Amino acid sequence: MDPTLENLKYDANGLIPAIVQDHATGQVLMMAWMNRQSLAKTVETGKTHFFSRSRNKLWLKGESSGHVQTVKSLSTDCDQDVILVKVEQVGAACHEGYQSCFFREFEAGKPDWNVVGERLFDPKKVYGK
Amino acid sequence: MDPTLENLKYDANGLIPAIVQDHATGQVLMMAWMNRQSLAKTVETGKTHFFSRSRNKLWLKGESSGHVQTVKSLSTDCDQDVILVKVEQVGAACHEGYQSCFFREFEAGKPDWNVVGERLFDPKKVYGK
Repeated sequence: MDPTLENLKYDANGLIPAIVQDHATGQVLMMAWMNRQSLAKTVETGKTHFFSRSRNKLWLKGESSGHVQTVKSLSTDCDQDVILVKVEQVGAACHEGYQSCFFREFEAGKPDWNVVGERLFDPKKVYGK
Repeated sequence: MDPTLENLKYDANGLIPAIVQDHATGQVLMMAWMNRQSLAKTVETGKTHFFSRSRNKLWLKGESSGHVQTVKSLSTDCDQDVILVKVEQVGAACHEGYQSCFFREFEAGKPDWNVVGERLFDPKKVYGK
């Protein structure tokens, strides 16, 4: 693994937040966590891989849905404790069927979030039940 | 505090990652952490406030530099455990003088990150020594 990636500031669990942005539109698609292994896999394959904290395992984004992300660039911030990955997204990023996971917008005084953005696929059809 | 914000999924330390994006250019400027209090302050004042894990205190972004961020919209993701804030940035976001904190880009095989983006101010002049 390149030392620049090895020496990022991973947290106590060996994880680093990875922001994923569409390289063409600039839309922020999602944020997930990487460990050294998933970052190495991401660089090696050119497809984003993350570490699932709930399932405690490495996952290739799009492994079930086919909605993979091809890496266009990889950056880190001034503190070197966050990664920004610009990607070309196949299909839609969100497992709920939206282009971006950030489809809920705040409005003061409202009892729930406003859903912005359009559902592009039916999760049941893509992931089964 | 609006229940939609109260009920976000804060981590074991009461924190939630907040991605900050320039509302006009789409550039991702930084990622920092918020707790309920800093999020409430952000909504109340319309200026981003974060929680500093190293200093263990609330901070107004731009309190030293004047480089405040005016909130244009506030979103959350499908899991409601990350926030995306679109802002109008006064000056530059990064305390190292760059527009965005993500000014280091990866290139395989290189011993260091490539610095992309131009330094817009001299940190010594803005923050003192």
